[in-house]
Amino acid sequence: MPQLRKDPVTKRWVIILHEQAKTPEDFKTVQPPHQQIKCPFCEGNESMSPPEVMSYRTPDTLPNNPGWAVRVVPNKFPALQIEGDLDRTGIGVYDMMNGVGAHEVIIESPRHEDGFHNYTSEQIARILHAYVDRYRDLRRDRRFRYILIFKNNGQAAGASLDHPHSQLIATPIIPKRAMEEIDGAKTYYYYKERCVFCDIIRQELSQGDRIVHENEQFVAFEPFAARFPFETWIAPKDHKDSFGDIDEAEIDGLADVMHSTLQKLIKTLDNPPFNFVIHTSPCDEHCADYYHWHIEILPRLSKTAGFEWGSGFYINPVAPEKAAQFLIKSK
Amino acid sequence: MPQLRKDPVTKRWVIILHEQAKTPEDFKTVQPPHQQIKCPFCEGNESMSPPEVMSYRTPDTLPNNPGWAVRVVPNKFPALQIEGDLDRTGIGVYDMMNGVGAHEVIIESPRHEDGFHNYTSEQIARILHAYVDRYRDLRRDRRFRYILIFKNNGQAAGASLDHPHSQLIATPIIPKRAMEEIDGAKTYYYYKERCVFCDIIRQELSQGDRIVHENEQFVAFEPFAARFPFETWIAPKDHKDSFGDIDEAEIDGLADVMHSTLQKLIKTLDNPPFNFVIHTSPCDEHCADYYHWHIEILPRLSKTAGFEWGSGFYINPVAPEKAAQFLIKSK
Repeated sequence: MPQLRKDPVTKRWVIILHEQAKTPEDFKTVQPPHQQIKCPFCEGNESMSPPEVMSYRTPDTLPNNPGWAVRVVPNKFPALQIEGDLDRTGIGVYDMMNGVGAHEVIIESPRHEDGFHNYTSEQIARILHAYVDRYRDLRRDRRFRYILIFKNNGQAAGASLDHPHSQLIATPIIPKRAMEEIDGAKTYYYYKERCVFCDIIRQELSQGDRIVHENEQFVAFEPFAARFPFETWIAPKDHKDSFGDIDEAEIDGLADVMHSTLQKLIKTLDNPPFNFVIHTSPCDEHCADYYHWHIEILPRLSKTAGFEWGSGFYINPVAPEKAAQFLIKSK
Repeated sequence: MPQLRKDPVTKRWVIILHEQAKTPEDFKTVQPPHQQIKCPFCEGNESMSPPEVMSYRTPDTLPNNPGWAVRVVPNKFPALQIEGDLDRTGIGVYDMMNGVGAHEVIIESPRHEDGFHNYTSEQIARILHAYVDRYRDLRRDRRFRYILIFKNNGQAAGASLDHPHSQLIATPIIPKRAMEEIDGAKTYYYYKERCVFCDIIRQELSQGDRIVHENEQFVAFEPFAARFPFETWIAPKDHKDSFGDIDEAEIDGLADVMHSTLQKLIKTLDNPPFNFVIHTSPCDEHCADYYHWHIEILPRLSKTAGFEWGSGFYINPVAPEKAAQFLIKSK
C-alpha cells in the first residue's frame, strides 16, 4: 500500500509509492514516445482499462462497451488505494498514514485525437458534469478530506498517455497549496470581513487590463502576481466556496469560459503543454464565508523551475497585463 | 526596473520582468542547443561578462583577465537590480515594490567541461568560499532580507549556459519556502524547546537507513518525506542557523560531503540534471535557536511536476530508504 508521509518542518504531505517502486535504471532510459499499438482509452478498447465507475453513454449501450461520450475508470496505477483504513502512526519526529484514497481517470472523449483544441462547449460541459458527479459521490466518503481534480496536457506537463483525460485524486489530508489558500483567505476575512477572491475579482473587472474572457457567471483573468507566463485563472463571479455546489446553468457558463480561454491559450502559444487544477474547499471544512473556488491554468513554457521548487520564489518574464493583451488579440 | 508583486491570498512574491519581456513567439521557437562560438564564462573571454565582483586568482594576474580559479560577476540579465530604493506601493488589494536586489553568477571553474562530475574536494571548497564571501558582503546591505544561493545543473534543470556556474540572488523579501520552514521550525521549538532539524538529524543518524554519507561535521541523507526520487539533504550536525557563519574547517567538511554525495548521485543516475539550493536564515531575523541551515539537492528525473506545482502535493515513486541503498552501493 502507498504511504503518506509528512515533512516535520513544512507539514507537506508526500505519497511514497512502494509497490510501483522505480530504480535508477528507470530514469536513465530515454522514455519512448507515447505510442502504443492499442490505446487503452480509445472506444472499442474498454476491456484494457479497469471496469468503469460511470459513463455518459447512448441509451441501450452496455457499460464497458462502445457508445460513451465521457467515461470514468479507476487509475490502473493508483497513487492511493480505495480499500483500507487510515491507520495513523509515527516514528520519533515523523508522522505517516496509509495511502488510502481514490484515484480516477476521466476519459474526456472516445476519440484519441480530440482535446481542448477541438472540444465544443457542449463536450466541455459534459466533462465538467463528470467532474461534478464524481466529486459529489466521493465527498460522501468520510475518510476523504480533499478532492483534487486536474489535467496534465502534453508530455512536458506530465501526461503519460496521449488520449485526452483528466484525473481525480481524493485524499485523506488537505494538500499544502489548498491549506495555504484557505489560511490566507481566512486571515483576510478576519481583517476585512470580505472574501479576498471577491475583492480580487471586483478589482480585476473594474481595472480590466488583465481580463481574458467573461460571461455572466465566470471570469478568466491573468493573476496580478502570476508565477508563470500566461498563467490564467477562471473564477465564478458570485461567491461560492465549493466546486461541488456548481449548478446546471453554471456548468454551461464555465464550459463557455473554459472553451474560449483554452482556445486563446492554445492558439496564442501554439498548443502548449499545460496543467489545470480545480482549487476548491475541503470536503469537511466549512469555508463558505471566506474561500472561493476557482481553476488555475498553468502553461508549461519554460524549464526553469527547479530553483522555484526549492525556494518558492518565481521569476516571470511576461507581465500578466501583456499576456492578457496577447490572448485577447487571438480570435 | 523589475517589479516584485505579492499574491494577496498566499503571500507569495513573484518577480515580474518588464524590460526582458518575452512574447508568445519566444516560447514557440524551439530553443537551439546551448552552443555558442565563444562561451562568456571561459578563461580568456572575461571581457564578454560584466566586470568581476571578486575572483580567486594567481598572484600577479589582473582582474577580468585569465589566471582565476573561481570568478564572480553580476548577472548580465539580472532578475533584480542593485541600484534604487524599495518604494513599496499598493493598488487596491495588491501590494508591490521595486525589484531591488543583487543577482550574481559564481563561475565555478575556468574550464568549460568541468562540473561536479569531476571537481576535487579542494575545488568545491573554493566554490563554497566564494559563496560565503559574497554572502557576508551582501548581508551588510540593509535593503536585503534574504540571500538565495543555488545551482541549476543541466538544461532540464533550468541552466541557460553549459559552463559550470551557480547563482546568488539577494532579495528584499523572504522567499515563501524559507518563510514556511522558519515558521514550521518556530512552532516546533515553542512546543518542544528543541530545533526540529537537530531532532531529524539525531533520528536519521540513529536509524541509519536513509544516510548517504557523513563525516565529523556534516551528514547527507534522503529526507523521510522526500518530494522527488533521490532528493538529498546535507546539514551540519551541530546546530547553526546561518550558512554565513560557516568556518574554515566546516567549509572543508562540507566540501567533502558535497563531493562524495554528488559523485554518488551523478554515478547512480548517469549525470542527471539537478538543482541545489542553500536554505539559510534571513539576514535580519534572529533564528539562532530554532532554524538550522542545510542544502537541498533535487535531481530532476521526471516531468510530472505541473500538478505538483498546482497542488503542493507530491507523489514519489522511490522510497527514500531505497534511494539511500542505491546511492551507498555506488562507489
